[in-house]
Amino acid sequence: MIKFDAAFNIAIDSAFSTGAEEIHFTESAGRILLNAVKSDIDMPPFDRSKVDGYACRQDDLGKALMIIEVIAAGKQPQMNIEQGTCSKIMTGAVLPPGSDYVFMFEESESAGENMVRYTGRAATCNIARRAEDVISGEAVIKPGCLIRPQEIAIMAMAGCTTIQAGKKVHAGIVSTGDELIEPDKKPSAAQIRNSNAWQLLSQIERAGAIGKYYGIAADNNESIKQLIETALSENDIVIITGGVSAGDFDLVPGALNDLGLRMQFDSVAVQPGKPMKLYTGNRKIVFGLPGNPIATFVLFEVMIRPLMAKMMGATFSLSDNLNLVLGNDYSRKGADTMAWIPVSVNRQGEAIPLNYHGSAHITSLHEATGLMSVPQGQSWIQKGETVSVRPI
Amino acid sequence: MIKFDAAFNIAIDSAFSTGAEEIHFTESAGRILLNAVKSDIDMPPFDRSKVDGYACRQDDLGKALMIIEVIAAGKQPQMNIEQGTCSKIMTGAVLPPGSDYVFMFEESESAGENMVRYTGRAATCNIARRAEDVISGEAVIKPGCLIRPQEIAIMAMAGCTTIQAGKKVHAGIVSTGDELIEPDKKPSAAQIRNSNAWQLLSQIERAGAIGKYYGIAADNNESIKQLIETALSENDIVIITGGVSAGDFDLVPGALNDLGLRMQFDSVAVQPGKPMKLYTGNRKIVFGLPGNPIATFVLFEVMIRPLMAKMMGATFSLSDNLNLVLGNDYSRKGADTMAWIPVSVNRQGEAIPLNYHGSAHITSLHEATGLMSVPQGQSWIQKGETVSVRPI
Repeated sequence: MIKFDAAFNIAIDSAFSTGAEEIHFTESAGRILLNAVKSDIDMPPFDRSKVDGYACRQDDLGKALMIIEVIAAGKQPQMNIEQGTCSKIMTGAVLPPGSDYVFMFEESESAGENMVRYTGRAATCNIARRAEDVISGEAVIKPGCLIRPQEIAIMAMAGCTTIQAGKKVHAGIVSTGDELIEPDKKPSAAQIRNSNAWQLLSQIERAGAIGKYYGIAADNNESIKQLIETALSENDIVIITGGVSAGDFDLVPGALNDLGLRMQFDSVAVQPGKPMKLYTGNRKIVFGLPGNPIATFVLFEVMIRPLMAKMMGATFSLSDNLNLVLGNDYSRKGADTMAWIPVSVNRQGEAIPLNYHGSAHITSLHEATGLMSVPQGQSWIQKGETVSVRPI
Repeated sequence: MIKFDAAFNIAIDSAFSTGAEEIHFTESAGRILLNAVKSDIDMPPFDRSKVDGYACRQDDLGKALMIIEVIAAGKQPQMNIEQGTCSKIMTGAVLPPGSDYVFMFEESESAGENMVRYTGRAATCNIARRAEDVISGEAVIKPGCLIRPQEIAIMAMAGCTTIQAGKKVHAGIVSTGDELIEPDKKPSAAQIRNSNAWQLLSQIERAGAIGKYYGIAADNNESIKQLIETALSENDIVIITGGVSAGDFDLVPGALNDLGLRMQFDSVAVQPGKPMKLYTGNRKIVFGLPGNPIATFVLFEVMIRPLMAKMMGATFSLSDNLNLVLGNDYSRKGADTMAWIPVSVNRQGEAIPLNYHGSAHITSLHEATGLMSVPQGQSWIQKGETVSVRPI
């Protein structure tokens, strides 16, 4: 059994790049950007007014000024601002030459026909200077980041309409266990419904990857081996749920060995999910996860999802948690593993550990908005202490 | 000008339901659940073993026990456990009658042919009792929640393969401003590229709604009115960017009045986004947002996204922030509005306010992972104080 951090590092180190593909920026949300985005223009591209108002000389503030032009956004000013004159100007319009101040409509009064006077107290000039945000040629988005709506806006401003993104990881799911039936069937006395595969498909999609479910393998070596073989041939990562403990009916490890994959670890000091296994070989990665849905959920979020991000080109930190204040005392029996404990966050922003009966108690994840990381060796955390929480 | 909280409440109160539609649970991620999900079975559905091991009588722990059966998951036990006997049992398998304890393989030794003895110290019985998590008929997911991977797992376990979800909100986007050109064009001297529409489309999709972009309206009343009219006829919400300040070329309010919508507010004490406007009427909601991309981004996240969630049936809190410790001193000039300030989170979990030049400085959002809420009237927050942050 190895420590969780060691297992995490082995998993992350097993990453290989899925390669790059060119996509349109409007289709890029949720993807990992591989190229630096550079701006082909200054931002702002010209000295511009931040407000609707009158552009004038600062020295003329308070004097009656003649309005010599109306400058709409998108139009070039035609007139220079001389002493005693101003131009009416709209938000985002080009500042007229000779002016160094814009005062707002709301702080002006009429001073006769076609004349206006500033009535406020001079504060800021309301001008955004050319290139004050970005100089042409400057990188405005770093490679390796997750593309969110704001990155799409920056790409649009920079004129970067096609980008390089990491190709989506393909992940196959194989369920094992003779006790499993699919959700649309009613279980008989010894059966339970398969929830893991459907949960994993949803987690894989949320991680920006492509999932495919290969069904429930019967508990015999030939059936398991065949399903895993098919899944391996079509995917970068294969996730097998169930069949990874020490029981007689746990045929997965043998099947993986037969397929030429090498075991990297077969047990991790983590709760839930201790019997987790990792096999690698021939640019394939196989996770063996326990059959219970909380363990599967947690191990995907804290290990497989970061691995997928790295394979698609992410250079950001893959294990960041939030620091929150613990709202209730927490204790557990034994501390020979680290633990991921479902927590909710109360109105005071404190993490509240949720009561759960063990790793099959999936309804406890319904209330959860985070997973609290409890270090190996620690069995007690006092209310008010700072704890480390992974949002889910 | 009204306070932000008042504007937020008016916006949320303008919500109308988009109605329900029946969808398959595997297609439900990111949607709002409208029906309570009830389990048609107990969970666990039978007393079951949590581990791979031997099921026996607790009184027999430490004695040599004869192995009388091997119980695989998915199979009914055929034998009763009598004194001096045990059955080998797999994780998830049905507990045999007569037994009240399961000890793990790892804590056992052979005690002769087909005989085994427990070598550990009695602790937990490793049995999950029937219905200890959920009783048949019990609601396992509350209506009004966001469906995440863990809710999909619960639906699968409960046999709930079709659900009622809130119909997706349809939101149209109309850009205004003669200075705008689309991102694939190179701007001339007085132009800038349109970033707002593409950012909004991505935000709308992330919010679980359906966005449609209607292009850039020319700055004349007829063009604006026509585009808005088309967008209104096809959507629940229309978001107009630009054209909402007090300038001569700001024709939107007139167009909306002509279309029979009533103004709810026309200015909000919030930075960025003060000239924000809301119009409602005839089961239509129109937001007029300033033309700058940070204001648009922020106002969508903190007001329009919660409104959309409510329209689709959300009953969870629509304005929850995280409480984080401020990592640097923060100050601002003036405090006559509340403010949403882009922040990143450092390795210590502290919020770090990002330097930004105002509401067109979109690259500052690239570094941001949250928006810090600064109350109206407050111009200074000291390092170490707790601040309220909306994740973005």
